[in-house]
Amino acid sequence: MSGQLTVPGALTTDLYEVGMALAYLRDGMTGEAVFGLFVRKLPPRRGFLVAAGLESALSYLEGLRVGHTEAAAFAEALHRPVEDLEPLVGLEFTGEVRAVPEGRIVFAGEPLLEVRAPLPQAQLAETSLLNLISHQTAVASKAARCRIAAAGRPVVDFSLRRTQGVEAGLRMARLGALVGFAGTSNVAAATAYGIPAVGTMAHSFVEAYEDEEAAFRAFARAHPGPVTFLVDTYDTEEGVATAARVLRDLGHVPGTGCGVRLDSGDLGDLAVRARRILDAAGLGEVRIVASGGLDEDAIEALVRSGAPVDVYAVGTRVGVSADAPYLDSAYKLAVYDGRPVMKLSAGKVTAPGAKQVFRGPGLADTVGLWDEAPPPGTEPLLGTVMSGGHRVAGPAPLPAVRERFEADLAALPEEARRIADPVAPRPAVSGALAELTERVRHRIERRVFGGRAADG
Amino acid sequence: MSGQLTVPGALTTDLYEVGMALAYLRDGMTGEAVFGLFVRKLPPRRGFLVAAGLESALSYLEGLRVGHTEAAAFAEALHRPVEDLEPLVGLEFTGEVRAVPEGRIVFAGEPLLEVRAPLPQAQLAETSLLNLISHQTAVASKAARCRIAAAGRPVVDFSLRRTQGVEAGLRMARLGALVGFAGTSNVAAATAYGIPAVGTMAHSFVEAYEDEEAAFRAFARAHPGPVTFLVDTYDTEEGVATAARVLRDLGHVPGTGCGVRLDSGDLGDLAVRARRILDAAGLGEVRIVASGGLDEDAIEALVRSGAPVDVYAVGTRVGVSADAPYLDSAYKLAVYDGRPVMKLSAGKVTAPGAKQVFRGPGLADTVGLWDEAPPPGTEPLLGTVMSGGHRVAGPAPLPAVRERFEADLAALPEEARRIADPVAPRPAVSGALAELTERVRHRIERRVFGGRAADG
Repeated sequence: MSGQLTVPGALTTDLYEVGMALAYLRDGMTGEAVFGLFVRKLPPRRGFLVAAGLESALSYLEGLRVGHTEAAAFAEALHRPVEDLEPLVGLEFTGEVRAVPEGRIVFAGEPLLEVRAPLPQAQLAETSLLNLISHQTAVASKAARCRIAAAGRPVVDFSLRRTQGVEAGLRMARLGALVGFAGTSNVAAATAYGIPAVGTMAHSFVEAYEDEEAAFRAFARAHPGPVTFLVDTYDTEEGVATAARVLRDLGHVPGTGCGVRLDSGDLGDLAVRARRILDAAGLGEVRIVASGGLDEDAIEALVRSGAPVDVYAVGTRVGVSADAPYLDSAYKLAVYDGRPVMKLSAGKVTAPGAKQVFRGPGLADTVGLWDEAPPPGTEPLLGTVMSGGHRVAGPAPLPAVRERFEADLAALPEEARRIADPVAPRPAVSGALAELTERVRHRIERRVFGGRAADG
Repeated sequence: MSGQLTVPGALTTDLYEVGMALAYLRDGMTGEAVFGLFVRKLPPRRGFLVAAGLESALSYLEGLRVGHTEAAAFAEALHRPVEDLEPLVGLEFTGEVRAVPEGRIVFAGEPLLEVRAPLPQAQLAETSLLNLISHQTAVASKAARCRIAAAGRPVVDFSLRRTQGVEAGLRMARLGALVGFAGTSNVAAATAYGIPAVGTMAHSFVEAYEDEEAAFRAFARAHPGPVTFLVDTYDTEEGVATAARVLRDLGHVPGTGCGVRLDSGDLGDLAVRARRILDAAGLGEVRIVASGGLDEDAIEALVRSGAPVDVYAVGTRVGVSADAPYLDSAYKLAVYDGRPVMKLSAGKVTAPGAKQVFRGPGLADTVGLWDEAPPPGTEPLLGTVMSGGHRVAGPAPLPAVRERFEADLAALPEEARRIADPVAPRPAVSGALAELTERVRHRIERRVFGGRAADG
């Protein structure tokens, strides 16, 4: 079967993770570490994030194993004899993972995932975990904004041709479905994830025939069900008129399930003209699909203008999250061997301790310590999803993940949902976490700087 | 072996390609088509592109085959009985590919690749070809700008943790090497492509030990060769002083191959201070590595300021080509069954006919017809790389690809190389291509519009 995802393995890591793991093993530093993965700051134009990528992260951890082949590759990369890598052979992930389930809405500073495992294991996993969670959370969040902008009209994914690789295309299709998209053009993704597949025709199809009408009739002959014609290859209004003629002749009275697609020009204006032509032809049921460089801003503008667009097809800009193609994510040591730790680098201070997020009504969150009592009326967001290196439950089906998203979206404050200039809620910090942070900071400053503040 | 690339197959396509291929087969439209893949317009802040992705595109075409499994998936996606897909079963790519070799510098409007094959085959391949070529060309072009900005100092790739998937991370490492990067942190990529692996340590490593000095000494014990210490976990100047003490004790006199890495704060200022501390300690050979959100702009600013940075490590912004995460690429029918065709959609007019790019001195290019005589003193850029569905030669080794890039870079006009406000050369159009374009446009306008211009 084609279209499989790249499976990250032990080699899918930065060399420094290997170097550190070796040093830890040499020094017997195999005590339990807690690392937290979080986003430091939301990108501009994001009022929220949608947690995503956890399923792939757990698959990676379940399959993580350093065998002799991997040890040989590490040795080569480090210019070391293979015997030096012996301590790493047999390493597997045997730890615990606590995480926010996929589909939940989250904010800056909240751990999306915490790993509790012997230090060398937790370190080696850093690179792939960051990659999987950051990328998918970024794309799911962008897609969610399109879904909001469309205000109830269906949105579909046409991004495969321009995502950053075919793996990213598969991810995008799944993440779109996760935030409520109605379908994808990506056959591999539709097959792998059970998402409705959607599609029309390309300009080349129209060009390959003698004229537009011949092309539409040929397409309809080959496809006995509902069809959507691409009408802008030469002149859009002529194209709509031709499509109307062919659709009437088809006898799918009155065009149920059929459509025309607009892919260039002033989409709002053309949709109005197309609607008029179709209605005049008695084809009030024929839908208008808009595509071509759409993102949440373009969709919102079309919706606000009252353009009679029935389906929005998004592609490139959403598939690469063009205005925020990455997240400022981090995977930071929070506890080693029972000792809470933190980082004081300029502008990158982290908080110590194993954490939990307590969610109150209206998505009012408090970041606190894992073992502190939940404030009254709050729900803990992180749950244990992996224990002893094994998942505690199978992957959640896509519809269940989508329901989580829908429930959080319904509770998200209006100012965070906004497409233009959204304002993201800022999670509070619990008293216990604030106190621990101060205590650890003082301990480090006393030790490292003899009392002076860090970095000036 | 872990870290393999996703292999796109027949399912890695948009549903509409399948729908069109079926219609073509039904109508006996299996005549030869020529499709050209090109970038319509360069993104802002790009004076050139680096052709990339061809090797993966050829691998995809060589493996493209519709078997019964794929036909069943297509049937399901189309809600059709599997018998209806029978005409597609057994489809393989048997065509010809002409392409610009990887590593060559190219501009807007120039075909990077042309496919000549029976129409259904060429259509089905559209989505994956666009994906592979567009993504890799975008990333190689971004990486090339970093290479230029560094003005001879080594650049290395640290992007894996934030690329759009692990496949994109593998691609980035290879593309960096292609444009002259000195190494990658990505072990899977180093192993797969024979690129030097590089790496230092993380802040978590320093935090896991009682103090910075203990961490540095532990790392050096575990790594008998040259080491690079990360010095900004707590206070950068203290960190450099500690590193200097440990490096002197190591006895790698005078620190050859060793380094310190700065990852936060004002990198230019900190590099000056670090250099002073190291020099005062007699460690003039210890290199300063800068990382943390670097791109071509940041590198150029550091180089211009005279900051004593010896190695630039780039990550996220380069791995996702953050300022231009996609290209405005297109795959357009240019000839069907001997008849040149074109598209007249508003703002998206394409040129008909099979094409060639003729390159003169200083990368002065002319886009012309495949079979026209090369203008004197020019070299044709596209060559036949696949014939009868098979490569005409094995993949070019990475060093050979890099040499092509170096040669073109040396000939690239200064204004196109500029980091800020580059000006891209505009290829000329040959007389023969201009004439054909006019002829085809008139033919279509007469037929479709009865003489009126397209779209107003």
